[in-house]
Amino acid sequence: MPHTRPTTHTLHFPELDRSITAQADESIFQSARRQGLRLVGACGGRGTCGTCVVRVTEGRVDATPASAVSDSAAIGPNPTHSRKKWLRACQIHAHSDCSIEVAPRSLAPVVRAEADTTGVPEMLALDASVCSHDITMPAATLADNLSDADRVLRALGQSNLTLDLKAAQALSPLLRKQSNDEHWSLRVRQRGQELIDFAPRASRTLGLAVDLGTTNAAAFLVDLETGARLASLGIENPQTAWGADLISRINNAVRSDTTREELRASAVTAINALAHDLCHAVGANREQIVDAVVCGNTAMHHLLLGLPVVQLGRAPFVATARGAMDLKARELGLSIAPGAWVHVVANVGGFVGGDHVTALLATQNRWQSCRTALVMDIGTNTEISLIHGGRILSASCPSGPALEGGHISCGMRAAEGAIERVSLEDGRITVRTIGSLAPVGLCGSGVLDALAVLRAANIVNARGRLAADHPDVQELNGQRVAVLAPGVHFSQDDVRAVQLAKAAIRTGVDMLLQDQGLHEQDIERFIIAGAFGAYIDITSGIAIGLFPKLPMERFEQVGNAAGLGVRQMLANQSARVRATELAATCEYVELSTRSEFQKVFLHHIGFPS
Amino acid sequence: MPHTRPTTHTLHFPELDRSITAQADESIFQSARRQGLRLVGACGGRGTCGTCVVRVTEGRVDATPASAVSDSAAIGPNPTHSRKKWLRACQIHAHSDCSIEVAPRSLAPVVRAEADTTGVPEMLALDASVCSHDITMPAATLADNLSDADRVLRALGQSNLTLDLKAAQALSPLLRKQSNDEHWSLRVRQRGQELIDFAPRASRTLGLAVDLGTTNAAAFLVDLETGARLASLGIENPQTAWGADLISRINNAVRSDTTREELRASAVTAINALAHDLCHAVGANREQIVDAVVCGNTAMHHLLLGLPVVQLGRAPFVATARGAMDLKARELGLSIAPGAWVHVVANVGGFVGGDHVTALLATQNRWQSCRTALVMDIGTNTEISLIHGGRILSASCPSGPALEGGHISCGMRAAEGAIERVSLEDGRITVRTIGSLAPVGLCGSGVLDALAVLRAANIVNARGRLAADHPDVQELNGQRVAVLAPGVHFSQDDVRAVQLAKAAIRTGVDMLLQDQGLHEQDIERFIIAGAFGAYIDITSGIAIGLFPKLPMERFEQVGNAAGLGVRQMLANQSARVRATELAATCEYVELSTRSEFQKVFLHHIGFPS
Repeated sequence: MPHTRPTTHTLHFPELDRSITAQADESIFQSARRQGLRLVGACGGRGTCGTCVVRVTEGRVDATPASAVSDSAAIGPNPTHSRKKWLRACQIHAHSDCSIEVAPRSLAPVVRAEADTTGVPEMLALDASVCSHDITMPAATLADNLSDADRVLRALGQSNLTLDLKAAQALSPLLRKQSNDEHWSLRVRQRGQELIDFAPRASRTLGLAVDLGTTNAAAFLVDLETGARLASLGIENPQTAWGADLISRINNAVRSDTTREELRASAVTAINALAHDLCHAVGANREQIVDAVVCGNTAMHHLLLGLPVVQLGRAPFVATARGAMDLKARELGLSIAPGAWVHVVANVGGFVGGDHVTALLATQNRWQSCRTALVMDIGTNTEISLIHGGRILSASCPSGPALEGGHISCGMRAAEGAIERVSLEDGRITVRTIGSLAPVGLCGSGVLDALAVLRAANIVNARGRLAADHPDVQELNGQRVAVLAPGVHFSQDDVRAVQLAKAAIRTGVDMLLQDQGLHEQDIERFIIAGAFGAYIDITSGIAIGLFPKLPMERFEQVGNAAGLGVRQMLANQSARVRATELAATCEYVELSTRSEFQKVFLHHIGFPS
Repeated sequence: MPHTRPTTHTLHFPELDRSITAQADESIFQSARRQGLRLVGACGGRGTCGTCVVRVTEGRVDATPASAVSDSAAIGPNPTHSRKKWLRACQIHAHSDCSIEVAPRSLAPVVRAEADTTGVPEMLALDASVCSHDITMPAATLADNLSDADRVLRALGQSNLTLDLKAAQALSPLLRKQSNDEHWSLRVRQRGQELIDFAPRASRTLGLAVDLGTTNAAAFLVDLETGARLASLGIENPQTAWGADLISRINNAVRSDTTREELRASAVTAINALAHDLCHAVGANREQIVDAVVCGNTAMHHLLLGLPVVQLGRAPFVATARGAMDLKARELGLSIAPGAWVHVVANVGGFVGGDHVTALLATQNRWQSCRTALVMDIGTNTEISLIHGGRILSASCPSGPALEGGHISCGMRAAEGAIERVSLEDGRITVRTIGSLAPVGLCGSGVLDALAVLRAANIVNARGRLAADHPDVQELNGQRVAVLAPGVHFSQDDVRAVQLAKAAIRTGVDMLLQDQGLHEQDIERFIIAGAFGAYIDITSGIAIGLFPKLPMERFEQVGNAAGLGVRQMLANQSARVRATELAATCEYVELSTRSEFQKVFLHHIGFPS
């Protein structure tokens, strides 16, 4: 046999029960990200945050003294004793197959229900699509040699059910394993008129809800027999390798069918990794997941489903399909029960997708009694719905990642060492970090605070210029920066990025109000959804003009409503019907092509005086 | 790049628009058979019949003078002028990639409707599952930017239809190709509440009916807009490489999952090859096939569907599933329209499968008015149904391939040179061959005739012994043989094989009659279905005891009723309902485990005096 040099290595993570491949030219951090491994990396692999810490227990990597991290930084005050060094995953490359241990602090946490902050497991109203039946039947004999499927139907007392092909392929050996000489027993999963899965009697009945965001993919494991949320996990969407925002990814997909396929596979990989890790954390296996619901914006939706995006990325911005879809999970490549279906949440239009529909669904009891309400989900794309007079007008604003700390010079994700609050004491800038550690960078809530403080202190003027004469302002690499803490600054470019983001969002709000002939003071309830939205300081948001100046009691920060909505849809069929109706009720408003857009946008680019 | 020697070559057949692979150790005939290429080979590749004739126009093979065939033998009296020799495909191996021409006589014919023997195209009663709509719609604009799927639904005037994923993936580019600036047009295929396919306006709407037999696979192309049968084609089932009979194939599949997968893939390859050749013959393409129906016996059914067969091959002989199934054709690996479904005909029980159900369906008007009727489909497995008193009792007899000329010392398939009739003139054996050519072997109808004649002349006695003292009997390789023609004989072993086959079938008939308390004279109509059954001489069949001695007018030879039935089901949804009802009505009778089986069988092993 001719010998060819392998260009990939296998990285094994025994504690996580996962193996991934490492390409020759990528860091271990990049390999992990590409394959949905839940390794934290707040700075995105730039080597600045020191959060992606691993220890190589077997195999060779190109570690240097610069890639090393101290024990205490890696794992806190109680280091284990090992001669293996802790290393930054983003600074090392595998030179052989490796076994790797991830520092506990560097693992994105699977939040198990019993360890939830509230201590009370969330119980969802249950009306599941899939029900389980436990049956026992006499074993086949010459005198009673019905087909196995007919025997199951007889035991169920039903006759007009269809049979999933993959379930059928597994049935006969499974029946004979779950048997004694006289009786066979089985757990049967039924979805509508179809038998989708057969399992041993003790098998659990689980569901997976997925919120596939542009930046983060979050998933939730639900017990479909009780309605209990068992565990939650969020990881970075590995599609980020093809661009932080939708338009970059669409452009990449349009340029090459191979890339489009890579983006599709990448989303599938993320969901499969989430399902794996959630099941691993609760001692289940992925074949016990018998139902799934996925929501995402229109671009995420199209890329995941392998739908073309070329027509989505250019005027008149047309989706291939908008309605809810029920697909065999295996058609999408999801590794759950072979016969399981996945419900893909309906989109609204433009880029306003199923994740906004689920946010509307989860907040419905908050807005439906109001005369006028607004639901906003702030993210890389910000979706806004204005609800008034029986209508829901919805729009999407390309706000970019700046508000979440992305593409900001010292930006990072919300992790230990991230500046989350900024204030002014005695005229000087003071900061608070997550975990009260030495400041490493700036996360989203810190970005808003920083700018509000800079503005309040007049370090930034009404047009967004950094003042030259403040002791906390310096010149760095040819531009002015406000120094927030040693090594962490906020630059003139960062100010501009936030200005563009907040102007885009505020323009969306204004134009929807205009369309309904309303004024911002008419908004009775201003609902801010999204994980990021939960942490921001509303006062700071008003101060920089991100939000209109309304009485504080009108604002509600409801956290990850999209996640709650998709869980509700997983547990409850009528929630699926309601979501589909909501999506059809929403009227999509395309802002970018409106003649007045530019004018309103310029009006909001500066700061309130 | 290291160079590795390829172990396979590509064989290209330009006229057939097909390319296949040749493994290093297989003859070109074997490669062709394995991949469903419609190359005739009456003797099955043993090199005796000279019917698998090809010419290698490019590339290298290991031709010797012994593999050559004369022009006239290959293609008849009008040879084309070429320096390339005609060769027996079973005697040559590819030593490079090749381009190959098949002699016209060596191609299993695609029978086009207009060239049918009757001259009248068959028109099936039409109530198709799939209907086509031609729609035109305004092109998307910023003011009217519905999703493409919603636009199609609006043009159809419908809203609650679902969308096949593969169809959805193709929709947006197709719409924009079928367009001018203002309007888009499209042909939409609907099946029930699902849109399964989108195509250009002029696209044809075709259906494929498949009778997947143990020995032969036959397929029929039907125009689903008119109900016309367009073309028919039969090839050998390539699974034959794993055994001529069901039990051999099941045993092979049970021994190895790899083999089971090969058997599955092999059946899929056969159907895809049939679809390709049928479409090629009528100038269509496979993506225009938007519906399919497949029938086969229970083992063919399980192997095609990837269902386990271990429990089918041993007592109590239990199928995994028996009922009709509707599956996405792509789940089975069928290369037709990506969104098409395939209806898999319900089985009865044991090995009595959907092919017998379709035979019952197609002959229903012949038997339903009778007090007592019998439907028999003679093949490698022979299925028998006895219809009486509102009940249908069905059984399967492992008759083996002998009656069709298989596993007979000089047996061959019905092709030129095959002895099809045998008679006695002046006490000496006389034969007639297909095409009146020099005798090469003996096909099925010839086998029955030969034995009847040998028996009538008392060359074979009532117990099946060949006489020693007849001038047409010789010793050959240690056993007695009756010489039918120069080089073609019928051996003592052949007599035994036919005895076993006819005894098995006759035992089945007897035991079904017993179960209903009937006598063979009660059979008012004895319907013989199947391509082979159409050609046999009933008198010979009675003479050797294959059939009971009934008045000749009670027998009806109806030809390939299974093929007609599966075509009816393709064209007509209510025929699918009727077939499913028929399958459920049939009561399967397991003969082999009955205590009286052996006694009845031994009673029938000899010949009538």
